[in-house]
Amino acid sequence: MPQKLAAEFFGTFWLVFCGCGSAVLAAAFPEVGIGLLGVALAFGLTVVTMAYAVGRFSGGHFNPAVSVGMVVGGRMPASDLPGYIIAQVVGGIVAGAVLYVIASGQPGFSAGGFASNGYGELSPGKYSLLSGLLIEAVLTAFFIFIILATTTAKASAGFAPLAIGLTLTLIHLVSIPVTNTSVNPARSTGVALFAETGALGQLWLFWLAPIAGAAIGAVIWKAIYADE
Amino acid sequence: MPQKLAAEFFGTFWLVFCGCGSAVLAAAFPEVGIGLLGVALAFGLTVVTMAYAVGRFSGGHFNPAVSVGMVVGGRMPASDLPGYIIAQVVGGIVAGAVLYVIASGQPGFSAGGFASNGYGELSPGKYSLLSGLLIEAVLTAFFIFIILATTTAKASAGFAPLAIGLTLTLIHLVSIPVTNTSVNPARSTGVALFAETGALGQLWLFWLAPIAGAAIGAVIWKAIYADE
Amino acid sequence: MPQKLAAEFFGTFWLVFCGCGSAVLAAAFPEVGIGLLGVALAFGLTVVTMAYAVGRFSGGHFNPAVSVGMVVGGRMPASDLPGYIIAQVVGGIVAGAVLYVIASGQPGFSAGGFASNGYGELSPGKYSLLSGLLIEAVLTAFFIFIILATTTAKASAGFAPLAIGLTLTLIHLVSIPVTNTSVNPARSTGVALFAETGALGQLWLFWLAPIAGAAIGAVIWKAIYADE
Amino acid sequence: MPQKLAAEFFGTFWLVFCGCGSAVLAAAFPEVGIGLLGVALAFGLTVVTMAYAVGRFSGGHFNPAVSVGMVVGGRMPASDLPGYIIAQVVGGIVAGAVLYVIASGQPGFSAGGFASNGYGELSPGKYSLLSGLLIEAVLTAFFIFIILATTTAKASAGFAPLAIGLTLTLIHLVSIPVTNTSVNPARSTGVALFAETGALGQLWLFWLAPIAGAAIGAVIWKAIYADE
Repeated sequence: MPQKLAAEFFGTFWLVFCGCGSAVLAAAFPEVGIGLLGVALAFGLTVVTMAYAVGRFSGGHFNPAVSVGMVVGGRMPASDLPGYIIAQVVGGIVAGAVLYVIASGQPGFSAGGFASNGYGELSPGKYSLLSGLLIEAVLTAFFIFIILATTTAKASAGFAPLAIGLTLTLIHLVSIPVTNTSVNPARSTGVALFAETGALGQLWLFWLAPIAGAAIGAVIWKAIYADE
Repeated sequence: MPQKLAAEFFGTFWLVFCGCGSAVLAAAFPEVGIGLLGVALAFGLTVVTMAYAVGRFSGGHFNPAVSVGMVVGGRMPASDLPGYIIAQVVGGIVAGAVLYVIASGQPGFSAGGFASNGYGELSPGKYSLLSGLLIEAVLTAFFIFIILATTTAKASAGFAPLAIGLTLTLIHLVSIPVTNTSVNPARSTGVALFAETGALGQLWLFWLAPIAGAAIGAVIWKAIYADE
Repeated sequence: MPQKLAAEFFGTFWLVFCGCGSAVLAAAFPEVGIGLLGVALAFGLTVVTMAYAVGRFSGGHFNPAVSVGMVVGGRMPASDLPGYIIAQVVGGIVAGAVLYVIASGQPGFSAGGFASNGYGELSPGKYSLLSGLLIEAVLTAFFIFIILATTTAKASAGFAPLAIGLTLTLIHLVSIPVTNTSVNPARSTGVALFAETGALGQLWLFWLAPIAGAAIGAVIWKAIYADE
Repeated sequence: MPQKLAAEFFGTFWLVFCGCGSAVLAAAFPEVGIGLLGVALAFGLTVVTMAYAVGRFSGGHFNPAVSVGMVVGGRMPASDLPGYIIAQVVGGIVAGAVLYVIASGQPGFSAGGFASNGYGELSPGKYSLLSGLLIEAVLTAFFIFIILATTTAKASAGFAPLAIGLTLTLIHLVSIPVTNTSVNPARSTGVALFAETGALGQLWLFWLAPIAGAAIGAVIWKAIYADE
């Protein structure tokens, strides 16, 4: 396996395993659970840590929407896209499976939503499809905008993994109640397969909205700052 | 639109959308809500992330009080001020509107205070106008002092966005109970328009106190450290 | 006022105003209060932010125990000590006074402990004098050890304010229940004057233990790593 | 004592004293306790702070599993391993003892689990031995992978302590409910000796799983990225 695809596989495994793992295992632990704040921190730190570790091999996307944004933004050839997306989705699914095995070692375990994304009845706060679509698209657009802006040659060297990972934390601080926060189709797919709810039937939105948002974010960046 | 005004527009949108969004959508979510700590982190991370992204274009103010402080501190010509403030206020209002659309997608939604700032009856902890005025002015003065000090040529390169954003987190950790924390007239304006309370009638204080504080902070910096 | 003493005055004001302010105003706010975690973060961020801002003028101590440690560690002439300590203590007391004015703007305000430090009956968890003495001394010793180690010429440039400030956060995460965490006589003095409890009568411990710990930490560092 | 062994002794003391100390003293403090999120942050910050302080002397392992991983990864001669592990375990035990003295200064103190690690009945969430084994091995494997990746000459200079420490925070955010999180045999040993539960009888797993995971992580890194 090429180094860059291994990086995307391991990075997306890490994102789903620790991000969704913190939600499944620790968010609602009685009395001392980490809550949505802890989950938001966990998702962001998966990107901070693996972007410092393997970002120089693959760019450190760990997310099909980010890869699409990099193609639209002119940072990656479109021919790389299929390999990246396959590595990311497989990484996410393997992470979901390992997490499922661990979680099922608790007496009385039931998978429930298993940290999957949703709208309407499957939204944590019962937000509508429109709310979910809008917030996922807006947040992913800014996510890609910030990634493109912090990884140019003119940006402060070394700080991009921190800025990008903390952007993901920030995104979760805002949107977990609305969609449980995707902005990442591989993350959504990795756990939807194990949910006992109808999450799989809503998965289309969490491919559509993040990818559409990513493309918009990349187009805006290029339109305004192309000459940088 | 010039790159610098676009930077201020997008940055202030991000600050209001994610900062106030975390308060409206996630702060009081049952059992696992992010609380005031999560909101404080969100506000700070909006500045960390967008200052790394677009700070090199506009300075990364995202806040009329900061722009005033930069003029008083001799870092920006006064002629730039109107454009900056318009871009910031429009960014804040657009963010408030998009947030309103998303939030209203929850069954039983009512805007309530909508993360607006206030004193007296509209203060989260019912603090007086004097308390609000004092804490907003003191915190904004230090905010500008820290911005001026961390962005000189002698400061550690690359760390300013982190230091400045974390200052905003710190400011929120202290003052949300008093005024819901402004230190930023564009942030206050962006959501006051959508509040169902009398927030609009108290908006004057959240232009007056942050801007007065910003000017004081800039004057103190110049008086003591001008020869740097 | 020389630049370095102004730096210590403003830095200690900021530490006490925001650190103790977060405890007095926001820690126990109903439902969404920031808790001890938020207070720990606030104290640490006061040092992160002001050390990036004015650390290059004064060293960024904001704490008499740190200044003593720097003298013992050979980083500062003993003749500078009186000026530093006076600037720090005055900064702490002024911060306590401004915080008192703001806090008293809430209906039904009573100062109570006002974030002061204590042992026995005045310890948050009723820990003994011995526990308080021991934890304050151990934590301050490591605090000074880490400060000396991260500010040598061989340390990673630019990261010291982050490492040192986060050390203060860590110290608070451990020890607030025991003594309400001092490790800083100026911080203890600044609020003890306003407490309605017997905090002033216990203040001696929060000069003794941090300064003794600081001296021990500096001696250990010099004994093992002097040849660096 | 050589500088490098002193670094490992002090660093592991700090990790156990502050990490386990935050759990024993502050996690479940009534109303305002720091919870599992605060404990996760504390463990991570022990590594961030001491790695910046003494990482350049010893590598900043503070953990026998990390030292094994460095040997397997070809970064440390095997002959250094015994000294490192002894310094780490002694540091952990001394920290456990000092923490015990401090904690016992609270009226009505009983050691209970004393932040020890466990599975089955001694797991915080009653997770099985298999769940504990799996999560400890997976998380330690990634921990070592990230350490190896962020400390090569090609990685961003200066950021490794931050990335590595935050990895430890992330690991705790996920796994405290399962095993109380070890990934570090010295940490497990340091407090198991003082627990009133049967933690000592389960200690073998928290040597086996982290060390096996560390070796796997190092092998994977070398297999894929050896040519870097």
